[in-house]
Amino acid sequence: MNGAHEIGRIDHVGIAVRQIDEALGRWTPWLGTPIRPPELVPSQRVRVAFLQVGESRIELLEPTQPDSPVGRFLDQRGEGMHHLAFSVASVDRALAEVARSGGRLVDTVGRMGAGGHRVGFAHPSAFGGVLVEFVEASA
Amino acid sequence: MNGAHEIGRIDHVGIAVRQIDEALGRWTPWLGTPIRPPELVPSQRVRVAFLQVGESRIELLEPTQPDSPVGRFLDQRGEGMHHLAFSVASVDRALAEVARSGGRLVDTVGRMGAGGHRVGFAHPSAFGGVLVEFVEASA
Repeated sequence: MNGAHEIGRIDHVGIAVRQIDEALGRWTPWLGTPIRPPELVPSQRVRVAFLQVGESRIELLEPTQPDSPVGRFLDQRGEGMHHLAFSVASVDRALAEVARSGGRLVDTVGRMGAGGHRVGFAHPSAFGGVLVEFVEASA
Repeated sequence: MNGAHEIGRIDHVGIAVRQIDEALGRWTPWLGTPIRPPELVPSQRVRVAFLQVGESRIELLEPTQPDSPVGRFLDQRGEGMHHLAFSVASVDRALAEVARSGGRLVDTVGRMGAGGHRVGFAHPSAFGGVLVEFVEASA
């Protein structure tokens, strides 16, 4: 398998924010209103909103609990870019390819993410400090 | 002016790396070879390489001097996502719009960036901790 054929586009750039409403005030003058109302993603303990930009989206992530991955990120680094998500044909195949090449994973198989999409995260060490998420196109 | 009409797409995501060659070993299996050989951008004291992904690109940035913006970023935060660049019709208009709405700027007018494109940076405080670059489409 050649991974180069697997990634279609940047699905989204995830940005950690303290308050989604405040962040929307900053971004909507540039990118327009969110695609859907903000939604809860209980598995990641975040509330998220997506703004379309070309074929990609900006995902604003507000932690629902301080003791959560995004809450700890905010404590340590403040607001800013949190992860980079690529659209792939198969999340499971992409994660397996990371593991095969010696990279660490956060998720060993895909799970349900925002918008009902199958998603999976590699560990930041696998991509030189970048937290990479794979997002599977809907069937 | 409504800024929402100005941003066309994510032009690129800039990633700070210690060594471009090492970083290319990580990314090319996924995104293919760079669009051009790595190039120097003296004004920003970096060497950069671009990898295409859909309508956007990943920009790998290696500092040419430790005492440079990307060199200091690496010292403070390590490798990882550094900036988010949007394609706009006019860099000068986009920068003026940031200033008009009370946001700080790094560049008050556009200047020459990688690939001969006119570019300009807002201050991270203008976009909630995200260093935003505007890139003008070539004429």
